[in-house]
Amino acid sequence: MPTREQVHNFAAGPSPLPTTVLEEAAQGLLNYEDTGMGICELSHRGKEFKAVIEGAEANLRSLLSIPDNYTILFSQGGGTGQFSAVVLNLLSAHRLAHPVPAEQFTPPPIDYVLTGAWSSKAYAEAQRLTSPPFPSCPAFAAPRIAASTKATKWTTLPKREEYDFSKDAAFVYYCENETINGIEFPSASASESSPYAFPFDLVPEGVNIVADYSSSFISRPIPHIEKHAVIYAGAQKNLGPSGVTVLIVRNDLLVDTTEAAKLGAVPHTPITYEYKILADNGSLYNTPPTFPIYVSALVLKHLIDNKGGLEGLEETNKAKAELLYATLDEAEKEGKVKCVVKEKDARSWMNVTFEIVGEGKEKAFLEGADKKGFRQLKGHRSVGGVRASLYNAVTLESVQALCEFIKSF
Amino acid sequence: MPTREQVHNFAAGPSPLPTTVLEEAAQGLLNYEDTGMGICELSHRGKEFKAVIEGAEANLRSLLSIPDNYTILFSQGGGTGQFSAVVLNLLSAHRLAHPVPAEQFTPPPIDYVLTGAWSSKAYAEAQRLTSPPFPSCPAFAAPRIAASTKATKWTTLPKREEYDFSKDAAFVYYCENETINGIEFPSASASESSPYAFPFDLVPEGVNIVADYSSSFISRPIPHIEKHAVIYAGAQKNLGPSGVTVLIVRNDLLVDTTEAAKLGAVPHTPITYEYKILADNGSLYNTPPTFPIYVSALVLKHLIDNKGGLEGLEETNKAKAELLYATLDEAEKEGKVKCVVKEKDARSWMNVTFEIVGEGKEKAFLEGADKKGFRQLKGHRSVGGVRASLYNAVTLESVQALCEFIKSF
Repeated sequence: MPTREQVHNFAAGPSPLPTTVLEEAAQGLLNYEDTGMGICELSHRGKEFKAVIEGAEANLRSLLSIPDNYTILFSQGGGTGQFSAVVLNLLSAHRLAHPVPAEQFTPPPIDYVLTGAWSSKAYAEAQRLTSPPFPSCPAFAAPRIAASTKATKWTTLPKREEYDFSKDAAFVYYCENETINGIEFPSASASESSPYAFPFDLVPEGVNIVADYSSSFISRPIPHIEKHAVIYAGAQKNLGPSGVTVLIVRNDLLVDTTEAAKLGAVPHTPITYEYKILADNGSLYNTPPTFPIYVSALVLKHLIDNKGGLEGLEETNKAKAELLYATLDEAEKEGKVKCVVKEKDARSWMNVTFEIVGEGKEKAFLEGADKKGFRQLKGHRSVGGVRASLYNAVTLESVQALCEFIKSF
Repeated sequence: MPTREQVHNFAAGPSPLPTTVLEEAAQGLLNYEDTGMGICELSHRGKEFKAVIEGAEANLRSLLSIPDNYTILFSQGGGTGQFSAVVLNLLSAHRLAHPVPAEQFTPPPIDYVLTGAWSSKAYAEAQRLTSPPFPSCPAFAAPRIAASTKATKWTTLPKREEYDFSKDAAFVYYCENETINGIEFPSASASESSPYAFPFDLVPEGVNIVADYSSSFISRPIPHIEKHAVIYAGAQKNLGPSGVTVLIVRNDLLVDTTEAAKLGAVPHTPITYEYKILADNGSLYNTPPTFPIYVSALVLKHLIDNKGGLEGLEETNKAKAELLYATLDEAEKEGKVKCVVKEKDARSWMNVTFEIVGEGKEKAFLEGADKKGFRQLKGHRSVGGVRASLYNAVTLESVQALCEFIKSF
């Protein structure tokens, strides 16, 4: 019967949240700011919830230094919903920018950078949604692979020379952090010198860039927001409970998908996935997931109040990751473990993946860890192994304790 | 600075929840069942959350007596998301049942029963999603109006003779309770004798029937589940916090929308809106909104434990509505108020709408009510007036207090 203090939660998401935030949320659940009503019992159009969502937006804009020509949206459907929404909205924007008659319209390429399971799923969804609506019709677009690390079983990132971008793509898509194998594009501080930095300069000018930032969102600053068309992230890693997805959308991509559909040659966009309708209604076109947004707002306030900002968090998160990788590299030399990702610049700070060498040893490791209070360390069901996720709410002390356990195992 | 006990919350949704449920949820937020982790911090694929979602499903099946050939799903996107999903899935099912070459395929009619703002929005979405994907192509379907009460400004229900159903519709759609004006199809007990009962017998045999039950879900038994193809409901009225939508789908409608798309002549379905993929994955295809599902599970357990079942709730909800309508009818005779819905059998038990007669009187009424602890009574912004929503968690005592206030005003 452990208390929160006796447990180290390394979940890959949904993942731990700061205790002080949860304490405030528990109070808000029963009586929000002395209204006599809980936060889940208040109209999403009332002044109380409006202050919550607007506060979250302002704090996010400040923390990430989001430029004025970008709109912040709170959506439902998770990252997987955005696999679809990105295609639908960006193809609609592309179509409206090329208002030729449908029969003269050339289906644009869409360039996917594949670095793991999530970007691959996004690519598969683009293929589904752009297939011809009638056998006699052209496809809506031509999804293609601009780079892929499948040959390495998703254990590294593409090098600069491996990218092959189209000149005229409707957009380029990449996943900043792949949670399953623990691959992440290097941080801004490392990226200048790294062969694995995302090659913004190789993307032809004017081509929109979309990034899935689900697992690393607000774990450190986002370099070059202004080079992106859309950045999105499911909340359930660093930001809040599951059920809300945050979008940062450049304003020219807030387009009327119904108008695009009237031109023809674009797939239809369900209304809840249209960015413009969300934007026009301050993310309140229909009832939003109020509690997940509320807790996210508390987390953002917590980050703002804790001063250091994302730069401070970056330092802590870097220290956590470096400590664990150093411990694992040492243990690998002793033949006890195997790191899944070998190359330092491709290693995720958020999801650290490794295998325990020796038959039956993995089970013993996980059971031993559990007894010591280390929770949710099991690797993703598709790959097995061990995965320690080091999101913002995981403390350096928890990582130190895990390192001690690994050394002693 | 009121306590929960000093406030009567008549919100139209998100709406009040039982205090005991919120107390348990507040505990679960910090330490769920002595795991040392909060419910929002647990993997949706772990044994703890699996027990939550499976328990919710079992209790819902038991409470509503849902037949075995129906699957219960937990989805994101709200009722508005289902405006789209229903069209996409049912057209895909229809297409697969008519696997002729695309050029020989006849776009089916879809019959909408319009009784207010929500069914009208659903109809508009069907029109958007079924429009021709190329100017030279046929439409995917032909949405049409099978009945409408627009001429009454949505203040009554169609009579039997006013329905005009197609023989070969892909589906018939209706909204069981329209929250804005407070219109609801009569309960099972009244429906035998009522001219406003939904005319299941007039719908041609074999035509699928879809119902939006968002506002009345689990407020009383659902008559004739077996006559429906799909029933859906946003949680945020009687069931739980906003952010989760419950679906009851007949198993033959769990179809592979990608296979339908390959035949052509159906709109593409974003993966998160495909019923089959949700069903195949126990509503865990992607990360679900775990907290809204958890609280909904607590509410369902609370209803099961409170014995009376939905029949008991029906009695209480009927008593609450009858008391308030009787008070309003009396006040209307005295010229103090005007009820929006005149005909008893068309009146919603969930959303009671009225106007205060006399210039400036409405403002005075709402301000006076607020001072006495009556909250969230303002009518929907599109129609104004007063609306008292009497969802499950609103007690008879709160309704009695409101009636006293109306009498004394």
